[in-house]
Amino acid sequence: MSILVVGSVAFDGIETPFGKVERAIGGSATYFSVAASFFTPVQLVAVVGEDFSDKEMEVFRGRDIDVSGLSRAQGKTFSWRGSYDYDMNVATTRETQLNVFADFKPVLSDSFRSAKVVFLANIDPELQLEVLEQVRSPRLVALDTMNYWITSKKEALKKIFSRVDLIIINEGEVRQFSGEANLIKGARTILSLGAKTIVIKRGEYGVLMVKKDEVFAVPAFPLETVFDPTGAGDTFAGGFLGYLASRSDHSESVMRRAIIFGSVLASFTVEAFALDRLREVSRREIDSRFRQFKTLTHFDDLEEAES
Amino acid sequence: MSILVVGSVAFDGIETPFGKVERAIGGSATYFSVAASFFTPVQLVAVVGEDFSDKEMEVFRGRDIDVSGLSRAQGKTFSWRGSYDYDMNVATTRETQLNVFADFKPVLSDSFRSAKVVFLANIDPELQLEVLEQVRSPRLVALDTMNYWITSKKEALKKIFSRVDLIIINEGEVRQFSGEANLIKGARTILSLGAKTIVIKRGEYGVLMVKKDEVFAVPAFPLETVFDPTGAGDTFAGGFLGYLASRSDHSESVMRRAIIFGSVLASFTVEAFALDRLREVSRREIDSRFRQFKTLTHFDDLEEAES
Repeated sequence: MSILVVGSVAFDGIETPFGKVERAIGGSATYFSVAASFFTPVQLVAVVGEDFSDKEMEVFRGRDIDVSGLSRAQGKTFSWRGSYDYDMNVATTRETQLNVFADFKPVLSDSFRSAKVVFLANIDPELQLEVLEQVRSPRLVALDTMNYWITSKKEALKKIFSRVDLIIINEGEVRQFSGEANLIKGARTILSLGAKTIVIKRGEYGVLMVKKDEVFAVPAFPLETVFDPTGAGDTFAGGFLGYLASRSDHSESVMRRAIIFGSVLASFTVEAFALDRLREVSRREIDSRFRQFKTLTHFDDLEEAES
Repeated sequence: MSILVVGSVAFDGIETPFGKVERAIGGSATYFSVAASFFTPVQLVAVVGEDFSDKEMEVFRGRDIDVSGLSRAQGKTFSWRGSYDYDMNVATTRETQLNVFADFKPVLSDSFRSAKVVFLANIDPELQLEVLEQVRSPRLVALDTMNYWITSKKEALKKIFSRVDLIIINEGEVRQFSGEANLIKGARTILSLGAKTIVIKRGEYGVLMVKKDEVFAVPAFPLETVFDPTGAGDTFAGGFLGYLASRSDHSESVMRRAIIFGSVLASFTVEAFALDRLREVSRREIDSRFRQFKTLTHFDDLEEAES
């Protein structure tokens, strides 16, 4: 089953203690699409400016990504500049130029309106709702958001939270939105608005998936080389939802495997600048790291142990 | 096999957003002993003052804890006052009174010198070395330490690090000691001094165990009620090493189970003030939470999944 994503395509300027890069292709929808395309066809909805050339489009080529919903507008592409300190957990935004993104009003084509799996990447919650209302009968809708919208558009966020199945969000944002210091309590507060599942990203500490009756916790894959965390969250979402969209059932065990695939893809993204590592990784390497994840986290049942 | 622990027995004054408690029995050796005693006999080496009455000794009674090495000195028992904010990850020390602990020079009895498993809790590294040198032929020696000793006695720490098999330490202390922002690199730097295993405590994020050729990562047990994190690290160490001491082999799979038992016991400790919850927990509850831990973290192998 294909997956529709709406979000940003951007030029990023990134500085970390290990170097810097200018005009790297980035944006939530870009990382998401590339990651999801390892598992399922992707329908991309975003906007770029006149400065996004045919050469830059190469990032999507040779993958199962339908770019017919990537519109080109007069003006410059959305751009972001950010930097990271040694701890790599928090990006400091140096500059954001919305450019063509300021007037982004996506209108879905007829075939895109039939999407069954939808990811609303981190954009204005009102825009997320407008896109969602164009989709006829989605089976699974997920979204991401950020501290900025929690501060500036909390009511719109509450509304969209009540309309989706799955919320992907950072740990700090759970606490900010819910006003709860305890993460599990905060997750339950958010679930009470309507979603069935909340997936909490904890950066280098991994992921927590909370449902009414199930909790799944997984550490991040420990790496000795973390060059650039940009896009890790969107890559995670792409691997997670891409795998889910490729499966006919979304049982707890399938969702847990999807969390691992998302974590595996994110672990590749951070190993190099921008999309450099994710663009060259193979499905064989992905599966191999999935197995390493199992080795990393496995312990015997109590009964196995005592027998 | 019994386990010998040297550390502190203390009176704690604790304040958290959920309440406060005065003159609660605490100290690294206390939490450690109670936790370890669920699995194996404990030999306790510590000192208390004249104000530590027979009533207070009850904390050790009815458990397999040999208190013949708990000496009573003229003066007052070591005391600590600390508080926690909502995030519960960092204690702010309000006051430390060393009292009888200032002149603590443990001399082990003959039977204690035969100990095979030894835990040097967080005390002056020079004192840790003095105790270790009294033990004839230990099979497994582990230690804990803290930022204070890394700052003030780094050379002594390096020396004791080269004499032990296993180091239990906080995430921040790995970074502080090694000067490495990357945790895995920092762990390898510490292992290069001689220990075979480093167990990194990450508070609410769980534990990472690193050896030359193996890494094991486990999240913490997610709790909706965390009242008081005091003693969580020492409880973890007690459960972990207590289980290890009870087993004849220390294979990777046994060590991983030991990490889970340590995490389970720590999760009970933080559910109430001071030792209140740990003192009443049963082995049946411990085993039950071990199974919940398995449910919390389990995902299928790739091969199971795709078949």
